[in-house]
Amino acid sequence: MPSPEFFQVLPVSDALKLLDAHWQPQPETESIAAADALDRTLAANIHSPEELPAFRKSTVDGYALRAADTFGASQSLPAFLQVNGELKMGEAPRLSVRAGEALLIHTGGMLPGGADAVVMVEYVQVAGANEIEVLRAVAPGENVIQAGEDVAANSLVLPRGKRLRPQDIGGLLAVGIDRIAVLRSPRVGILSCGDELLPPEAELVPGKVRDINAYTLSALAEKHGAQPIRFGIASDNFADYQRRAAAGFAACDILLLSAGSSVSARDYTRDVIKGLGQPGILQHGLATKPGKPTIIALCDNKPVIGLPGNPVSALLVARQLLPSMIARYLGQALELPRMVRARLSQRVASAAGREDWLAVRLEQDADGELLAQPIFGKSNLIFTLVSADGLLRLPLNTGGFDSGSLVDIVLF
Amino acid sequence: MPSPEFFQVLPVSDALKLLDAHWQPQPETESIAAADALDRTLAANIHSPEELPAFRKSTVDGYALRAADTFGASQSLPAFLQVNGELKMGEAPRLSVRAGEALLIHTGGMLPGGADAVVMVEYVQVAGANEIEVLRAVAPGENVIQAGEDVAANSLVLPRGKRLRPQDIGGLLAVGIDRIAVLRSPRVGILSCGDELLPPEAELVPGKVRDINAYTLSALAEKHGAQPIRFGIASDNFADYQRRAAAGFAACDILLLSAGSSVSARDYTRDVIKGLGQPGILQHGLATKPGKPTIIALCDNKPVIGLPGNPVSALLVARQLLPSMIARYLGQALELPRMVRARLSQRVASAAGREDWLAVRLEQDADGELLAQPIFGKSNLIFTLVSADGLLRLPLNTGGFDSGSLVDIVLF
Repeated sequence: MPSPEFFQVLPVSDALKLLDAHWQPQPETESIAAADALDRTLAANIHSPEELPAFRKSTVDGYALRAADTFGASQSLPAFLQVNGELKMGEAPRLSVRAGEALLIHTGGMLPGGADAVVMVEYVQVAGANEIEVLRAVAPGENVIQAGEDVAANSLVLPRGKRLRPQDIGGLLAVGIDRIAVLRSPRVGILSCGDELLPPEAELVPGKVRDINAYTLSALAEKHGAQPIRFGIASDNFADYQRRAAAGFAACDILLLSAGSSVSARDYTRDVIKGLGQPGILQHGLATKPGKPTIIALCDNKPVIGLPGNPVSALLVARQLLPSMIARYLGQALELPRMVRARLSQRVASAAGREDWLAVRLEQDADGELLAQPIFGKSNLIFTLVSADGLLRLPLNTGGFDSGSLVDIVLF
Repeated sequence: MPSPEFFQVLPVSDALKLLDAHWQPQPETESIAAADALDRTLAANIHSPEELPAFRKSTVDGYALRAADTFGASQSLPAFLQVNGELKMGEAPRLSVRAGEALLIHTGGMLPGGADAVVMVEYVQVAGANEIEVLRAVAPGENVIQAGEDVAANSLVLPRGKRLRPQDIGGLLAVGIDRIAVLRSPRVGILSCGDELLPPEAELVPGKVRDINAYTLSALAEKHGAQPIRFGIASDNFADYQRRAAAGFAACDILLLSAGSSVSARDYTRDVIKGLGQPGILQHGLATKPGKPTIIALCDNKPVIGLPGNPVSALLVARQLLPSMIARYLGQALELPRMVRARLSQRVASAAGREDWLAVRLEQDADGELLAQPIFGKSNLIFTLVSADGLLRLPLNTGGFDSGSLVDIVLF
């Protein structure tokens, strides 16, 4: 005779804090090419081995000169300078600039010795074969980037834990760092359990369903920068479940157990987790719907999450937990979800004491305003989520939202 | 003698519309495993080959029965039913339910013949070895998912052009679709030009700088779901530039030319693009800063973008163009950028008639409010972007924002 499950629920954020208080992630480090490091996390502070730029550069097309030679110059009283040649891009200048002289220089070109400023071509008139008139004064340093102005040698340019963006990769390569140590992405292991489950490629027979949790959870892990590893399907037989969970646990950094639908399978998940290590189960039951019967555990410093077997619940609760755990593992701030503001098409109610997540469809009305239409229906229909554009969160202690409210929709 | 560049600028959005009006992307299709299809784009509408679920299922743990047998039942006047056994998960029931009978069933279990509803265990008292008391009436269909209730056979489940999310992959696998046709991601070719450029791994010599645009632009393309291909560095020699551009053009779907810094290299970019195909240059000059001298072209139905050589300008203007072009190529809606609201720490001014993008650092103040601090400095320092958390957009016709304004920051 199955017994109903009773447990003291905790808000998701409190359950995550509880996990964080016990968990000390110890990610491994690997060396990769900086060019391949998009979205990877730096394992150590990076100091610049050199200054950037390595030499004084012009920021404009113009003439390198001594600023003092232009002091007082104007349209009506130009400064005359002798032009001794053109500086070629990509070469150290062989010429230098003396008083009364100038050299033609291009944007990015290296400043010649003697020059301390560049006047833009727009403020110059060519007066003869080797002579220009400078029509306004330039200040020392004008239109020049000093050596080391972008980055000084030995300065900290990127901190440990930084998740690398395109510009960060550019910054690393600019100072000659082409290999870096990054944190190995966490391996998120996924084991599904249930006698009713078949792999998706198998022929369906009456009473069986395809295991999709292993794949939705893999995709979720991948989306958030982790490496998913699928450990297949355990039967509702306790010994089989335990053996597969222990083998998977050893081969990953975070283990997700997608429990079977039957009560015995759900009970087994508790017992399986207890056998994986200390301290074991930290919390059973979250103040969220769907996802209430979720188990949060830490076994020998490795998080283990017992998820409901229902595909909608499993995915919606995993998206509240897994991104935060991956970020914690890598020592990063949690990436903000993409959100839009929309007007709610109808009243939605919520029970106090839990957070509800409701699938919504977004449509633009005639005025271009976004309208959020809740998708009601039985909570375990995966196509509710497939047809949804996003999720509306009903916070812990709201009764719901009125029709016409402006609400934030998490795009998911 | 170099001549200043004059052109009629267009707002970025207008330039993109101009491109869209001429461009007819013709992406190729490839077949991949649905399990590997995260963020890929469906090449065709997907109809479900079968109904989901394939059989009537219980949504709870309880007893499968005939609803009519419970009509009128209550705590004080329960309905007595004979229990003929337990239905095993993952098997088609061998037993069926007749009037006055019930079968123990688990969540997700297949409903037996004769039964039309399930009563939850919570509303049942076990009265004897094979007898239960049902303490409340259940309606026909209660706690049951009908066959096909999630998806009807042959219905459209996912449309062409859909970018696949975790739940979409789950939906596909749930109805037995494990291979799908997706659009091949666009190949974004990148050619840098300039005699001053060295590959990042080369030893730096005076006058030379490392080519970082090829890498920042690659990472940007990758971030937005494209396949970057780097074509190396062309010299400022026109024939070399033209030959490399033509070879690269043939091997990609979108070509980015990162022009040399010198005037002749910039002029060459125009001429190189003109030689690649018809109609050629659609627009030279964007009303954006940085990024004004950008060229938008379409050559033989393939976009070619001439970007400034300055790494900051190149990246900031590419991020306004490339994601939109990739989305257009794949027939998708443009993904929303991640944004946060922050309070501006100081007044920022903007010239009318152009859109300015300003790098900002975000900090939380004592009250937890986000403060956006503009990073001023010469526009071509890559570490301005490395040290930035996001970008503030100063729209076309604003004079700027006052200190203390609440502004939207694009996280970048």
